[in-house]
Amino acid sequence: MECQDYGLKRDTERNNLNLNPLQRGGVLPVEARKALYEFSDGYSACDYCAGRLDEISKPDIKGFIDDLATFINIDHARTVHGAREGKFAVMHSLCKPGDTIVIDGNAHYTTHVAAERAGLNMVEVPNTDYPNYEIRPEGYKEVLDDLNDNGEDISLVLLTHVDGNYGNLTDSSSIGKIAHDTGVPLLLNCAYSMGRLPIDAKKLKADFVVGSGHKSMAASGPIGVLGLKDEWADTVLQRSDRHAVKELEMLGCTSRGAPIASLMASLPFVIERLKKWDEEVNSTRKFVDTMERMKGVTQLGIKPTEHDLVRFETPLFDNIAENHPRRGFFLYEELKKRNIVGIKRGQTKWFKCSIYGFSKEQKDYIGESFVNIVNKYLDM
Amino acid sequence: MECQDYGLKRDTERNNLNLNPLQRGGVLPVEARKALYEFSDGYSACDYCAGRLDEISKPDIKGFIDDLATFINIDHARTVHGAREGKFAVMHSLCKPGDTIVIDGNAHYTTHVAAERAGLNMVEVPNTDYPNYEIRPEGYKEVLDDLNDNGEDISLVLLTHVDGNYGNLTDSSSIGKIAHDTGVPLLLNCAYSMGRLPIDAKKLKADFVVGSGHKSMAASGPIGVLGLKDEWADTVLQRSDRHAVKELEMLGCTSRGAPIASLMASLPFVIERLKKWDEEVNSTRKFVDTMERMKGVTQLGIKPTEHDLVRFETPLFDNIAENHPRRGFFLYEELKKRNIVGIKRGQTKWFKCSIYGFSKEQKDYIGESFVNIVNKYLDM
Repeated sequence: MECQDYGLKRDTERNNLNLNPLQRGGVLPVEARKALYEFSDGYSACDYCAGRLDEISKPDIKGFIDDLATFINIDHARTVHGAREGKFAVMHSLCKPGDTIVIDGNAHYTTHVAAERAGLNMVEVPNTDYPNYEIRPEGYKEVLDDLNDNGEDISLVLLTHVDGNYGNLTDSSSIGKIAHDTGVPLLLNCAYSMGRLPIDAKKLKADFVVGSGHKSMAASGPIGVLGLKDEWADTVLQRSDRHAVKELEMLGCTSRGAPIASLMASLPFVIERLKKWDEEVNSTRKFVDTMERMKGVTQLGIKPTEHDLVRFETPLFDNIAENHPRRGFFLYEELKKRNIVGIKRGQTKWFKCSIYGFSKEQKDYIGESFVNIVNKYLDM
Repeated sequence: MECQDYGLKRDTERNNLNLNPLQRGGVLPVEARKALYEFSDGYSACDYCAGRLDEISKPDIKGFIDDLATFINIDHARTVHGAREGKFAVMHSLCKPGDTIVIDGNAHYTTHVAAERAGLNMVEVPNTDYPNYEIRPEGYKEVLDDLNDNGEDISLVLLTHVDGNYGNLTDSSSIGKIAHDTGVPLLLNCAYSMGRLPIDAKKLKADFVVGSGHKSMAASGPIGVLGLKDEWADTVLQRSDRHAVKELEMLGCTSRGAPIASLMASLPFVIERLKKWDEEVNSTRKFVDTMERMKGVTQLGIKPTEHDLVRFETPLFDNIAENHPRRGFFLYEELKKRNIVGIKRGQTKWFKCSIYGFSKEQKDYIGESFVNIVNKYLDM
């Protein structure tokens, strides 16, 4: 048989300023590129395995797993294939099909599919709707109280630490307390926070945390982090009857290859970059100011934003598109001319973006570019 | 916090002749190294996603998935994180906790942990024991007949196409027929075959096949292949109620990063190398002859071998070790001096190895090296 040409090139995304929030936190530092090269081949993490991935000492995966638990201040850490796989592992081991869990209205779709795969019913805590779409602790309290009043058992409370639509940072500590007051553990989805901002699972009152290496920890995907408190270790890290060292939810071992090497190489870099989180938020706020000075551009979500992912509604761009010969494609094309990518082609009513990790000059340039594009058409 | 030095180097395994069977089929060709470089960053496969990984057209994952299904002659293909994750997806969607499945006595430990994780009972078809450890169709027939006679429902029959202990190639076609005669589908674990030898799922009478990119398809792990017949698509590829395009067992998407790019880049290379499978088997047989000419070295498993993974019992090396100042470490150290690695340190009673993918000169050199080591000590 003949294979098609799969077009395995990514120059556009690698060589331009990419505003796609999904891609900003997963850019590899040079150390991780080197590790990826060393561990490119197949089962490369497993040369010196004595039975369990998280106990390998060459490379020092064991030491890394210990550091990872320290990094997020939780008792046990494991690598998984991603945040979604971590959520499923918790749900599958902790809950039975038919159980009910409480989730936030801003939950990522993978929370829904993980719960569906585990056969669980989801009850949602709604957000505050337009324009802030906030998830509030009192919403969790209300939903949990109602369920309790109806005699419904809840197996798990899940909260999205920072959601992927509005970049809203939620109050995990208060929601964790509310969950614990009703005797239910909290699973915190940190896919958009772990690796960008400091995570202290104890302070956040989370029993379980999941993170995403490819989304926010400067690692080559797919790889994620699962952290859990000791009291849940027997359940979530239950071992095989036949193979005493193998953990069932991990299917023995998880990330047996290059991604774990890249995550390991990136951890020191990630620890350093967390220290600049406040700067990142401040420069995002400045960027939002620049954008909002244009009439017809409004940031949605919590204001001022507390995260680098921001969503704008942009009737201004939509109006320009209406009279533009390229219609909705004009924005993508004007940005591309300026070496900026990551806003979906054709999209002008609203968009999400992030300037996380760029230099000050690049950040300024991105804001100015949007202003210049608008000025070009307003002057016409 | 300060990270430890994780020792992220793999020079020994990269720069020497590595006989570890786990590593032989996962060595990347140059095209895959380039793809890994292009797609190093985080969520790199997802720049142009419209909702589902297997439908992305840039890079052409959709075309690749179609090619993959053609490659193994089955109706549907998906990438998963590895063979074990593919097995679990089938078991979890097809069976209910408490169900019984039939597996072979040479099954990989991941078959056991996948079944345990899915809450299944396993009934084993024993192998023929020392020295061949064969899995025979009549063994499956006997076990299935017995279970039927006892009125036991069987949800799934699983067969290891080539096992990882003896490299025994099993008769899938006959066992598939036996399974189908009792109305049960067959899941064929091709972790040690897909990508090394031609797989035709229809001829092999498999309803499901799983393969391993990092083990046998020249890909950077973790990545695997799940193939299935159309009649099982509604069950195994069931979609989310909330997110119409997302498949539950895939948790929406699976290999969202570098490993899928490496598997895509490697497929044309893999298709080519299958054509040399008979040569590989012949040179392995020649290597076995060289080894067995030394008194006290015997290949276990089916003879002559039908795979590159071979297991030797080696009382000869164990005898040398007894009188050697370095004891069992002598073999590892003597091989290392000759730039050969991949036999576990300290192991002399038996070992598994593979010379798959080496040049003729390298293969000859490896055989000669074992002989030279033995001669050195027999002469002393």
